[in-house]
Amino acid sequence: MAFKRVDAEDLAFFERLMPGRAHSGAAISTDHMHDEMTEYGSFAPDAVLLAETAEEICSVLRYCNERGIAVTPRGAGTGLCGGCVAIHGGVVLSSERMKRVLEVDARNMTATLEPGVLLMEFPKSLEGTGLFYPPDPGEKTATMGGNVMTNAGGMRAVRYGVTRDYVLGMDVALADGTLLTLGGKNVKTSSGYSLLDLMIGSEGTLGIVTKLTVKLVPEPRANVSLLLPFDDLDACIDAVPEILACGCEPTAVEFMEREVIACAERYLGKQFPDHSSDAYLLVRLDGASAQALEPAMETLTDTALRLGARDVLLADTDERKESIWNARGAFLEAIKGSCAAMDECDVVVPRDRIAAFVRRSVEIGREQQIRICSFGHAGDGNLHIYVCRDDLEEAAWKRAVAAVMDALYAAAREMGGAVSGEHGIGHAKRAYLLQSLGTRQLELMRGIKAVFDPKGILNPGKVV
Amino acid sequence: MAFKRVDAEDLAFFERLMPGRAHSGAAISTDHMHDEMTEYGSFAPDAVLLAETAEEICSVLRYCNERGIAVTPRGAGTGLCGGCVAIHGGVVLSSERMKRVLEVDARNMTATLEPGVLLMEFPKSLEGTGLFYPPDPGEKTATMGGNVMTNAGGMRAVRYGVTRDYVLGMDVALADGTLLTLGGKNVKTSSGYSLLDLMIGSEGTLGIVTKLTVKLVPEPRANVSLLLPFDDLDACIDAVPEILACGCEPTAVEFMEREVIACAERYLGKQFPDHSSDAYLLVRLDGASAQALEPAMETLTDTALRLGARDVLLADTDERKESIWNARGAFLEAIKGSCAAMDECDVVVPRDRIAAFVRRSVEIGREQQIRICSFGHAGDGNLHIYVCRDDLEEAAWKRAVAAVMDALYAAAREMGGAVSGEHGIGHAKRAYLLQSLGTRQLELMRGIKAVFDPKGILNPGKVV
Repeated sequence: MAFKRVDAEDLAFFERLMPGRAHSGAAISTDHMHDEMTEYGSFAPDAVLLAETAEEICSVLRYCNERGIAVTPRGAGTGLCGGCVAIHGGVVLSSERMKRVLEVDARNMTATLEPGVLLMEFPKSLEGTGLFYPPDPGEKTATMGGNVMTNAGGMRAVRYGVTRDYVLGMDVALADGTLLTLGGKNVKTSSGYSLLDLMIGSEGTLGIVTKLTVKLVPEPRANVSLLLPFDDLDACIDAVPEILACGCEPTAVEFMEREVIACAERYLGKQFPDHSSDAYLLVRLDGASAQALEPAMETLTDTALRLGARDVLLADTDERKESIWNARGAFLEAIKGSCAAMDECDVVVPRDRIAAFVRRSVEIGREQQIRICSFGHAGDGNLHIYVCRDDLEEAAWKRAVAAVMDALYAAAREMGGAVSGEHGIGHAKRAYLLQSLGTRQLELMRGIKAVFDPKGILNPGKVV
Repeated sequence: MAFKRVDAEDLAFFERLMPGRAHSGAAISTDHMHDEMTEYGSFAPDAVLLAETAEEICSVLRYCNERGIAVTPRGAGTGLCGGCVAIHGGVVLSSERMKRVLEVDARNMTATLEPGVLLMEFPKSLEGTGLFYPPDPGEKTATMGGNVMTNAGGMRAVRYGVTRDYVLGMDVALADGTLLTLGGKNVKTSSGYSLLDLMIGSEGTLGIVTKLTVKLVPEPRANVSLLLPFDDLDACIDAVPEILACGCEPTAVEFMEREVIACAERYLGKQFPDHSSDAYLLVRLDGASAQALEPAMETLTDTALRLGARDVLLADTDERKESIWNARGAFLEAIKGSCAAMDECDVVVPRDRIAAFVRRSVEIGREQQIRICSFGHAGDGNLHIYVCRDDLEEAAWKRAVAAVMDALYAAAREMGGAVSGEHGIGHAKRAYLLQSLGTRQLELMRGIKAVFDPKGILNPGKVV
């Protein structure tokens, strides 16, 4: 792919279009050159444009499409697979300044917002409405637009589903600058191909989202978390399918090992409330009232004890819940802080294969003599496996990480899994996507890409 | 579009491929020439092929694609917009004989089945597992494949969502006979464009589904239905948004008018359990136990009475539930039986516009001096509006129905609605889809169609 570089004339156009918000050369922050996985490299764009309106996004696209300048859309840059990084140079078009919640429509139970609204900021707009937005990815400083474009998952997906399940509509700028409105406030539709679903998870390769309408649901008035210590990882993970099927309708089922918890304790400088065990399940239940939760808690407790849980530790105070969930929320940063470099695998496997996959990952780490930390959404089969560099030299690290990743993705394929559960493909996972889906599916995806973006200017080198 | 007609050589090939299951000429049943909306015409295909395996479907497609023969996929033929009718002749390729449930996987909470399994048959495979498949379209003799290809909705969509939300994977035969596996048993994925979501609701224009994997959920152990009589339709429909927001988490919220109920009473020869009112809401609640339902029932009762319900009639016995839901289930057939011909509008509007839309539809009927019956899924904004011919002459009927449909779809567009909530586009609603989405979205859809089916042999003349 050969794209036109951004020259002085182009920069002058961008500067006129968005005065003071078109940066080039030394004015470009290194933050805009990578995402949260610095392992995948740093790439300097020719220009970083901080859009504030849909019209600006459309104008930039129209201009770049006519001239063949690559455009890499970007939110908060918290991705983990290099999706928002300008690997072919050109323009980084950021929506990080488009952070207004435009409407909370309580009667329709929807919210309409700009794509740059942060996941951690959005709930503030919903206070007092009795409504909430269920998707709960760990990275709270991500943007809502980024969440939609990667179809982010998160802790509460077991009960509530993933981002895709909450996007009702969007305005999206196509590569040629046309603005389309897909969907709206309707909660169902059978009206032609779902272009909306095609956009969701397309990682900015088919269009740039400029406005979102998401579904809200009544906020459960009570919740409780239960921490279940098991003798070992096997017993812990083996319990998951029965817990899911026991009728307690869990909101979240996370698994965590002692080593990762210890990492988080060091990182946060806070003790985890239990040290009795090597492997835990953390289950959250939501309900209309504390009383309404009791039958589910009883069922869960009975099931867990029958399946070998040593104890059932109840977290029903805010303080106790926070101490557990904050530890869970800090895992990624804690592991990152514990080693010089790391690489990540975000596979998803059918739920009954989680235990087999975790065991296989431990074996792979042992075979390659490298430290592997894992945690994840046991309730939906989505695992986060981190390969840690520690004190390995560059060449050995590269060799080991490639071998581990190849083996992990091969194992996932064998088990009917997919390359990414919730982080996406970006440029880092493309080879594994091809291995997983085969050439025909990739050809179809490339055909779709060509329909939406014939010149291929939108986020080139990503996904397909 | 010019397609090759099926000739003697082609028929010989089909007969060799599927002996005794390739029909032509007088051997073709008229049932295979239309769907449930006979108003949209009867079209005789050159051949009807009753496939029994994915391999047969692939072989037929490969053969027809090479020769430019049109292929119209078909399930049970219960559609309402002419989607499975061979308007360009050629082959009707039916999967009605592919009706095996291949696997119920309780640990993963999935079922894998052939596309011809009937919606009414599928639950029998789940007996004793404690699991159920939530989508609940009114037409129980529809096939699961047809449900997926139209993204069917149904009564329980308010709480559980639509068919799209339950399809985890499918095998699909492309126009050239390639068999692809999309998705699988994973409950989440962010691994490239969602070809799975693109197939769902594509009405057989992009591929023919040969196998499905659907998500199951734990069956709620208790349910109750509440019938809420209101003074008039306005009060009835106006209550919907608050009922949805009151925290009772309804599974279904249907509205029904006296006139339609009376139709169903005549059709079924059975009395509806209440005659006190002109307009009713019917609300179903699901829960883990009768006791667990009590708080929701109280909340709902208080809310309904505050909003003007005359009474709250509880249906907690099987007999009483059946008498109400059977009436609801018979509405379509009852209206059909009440007039010489009818046409249907299946729009969906944002939930807060339902009352306005129903009022507008009454006005439109009055303006055009034609009988209009409506009922529908008040809880998700999806209305079924039937224009009844009664004793109108052909020319007057055609004129009136066109005027009514134009006005209804225009009203839906104004209110931010969509052409079809759950029945699809077929050939009957194409003009309205274009009006609703505009040329650019239709162009994108046609571009996608060309990627999957370059020769346009798959279900030509439908959707795009």
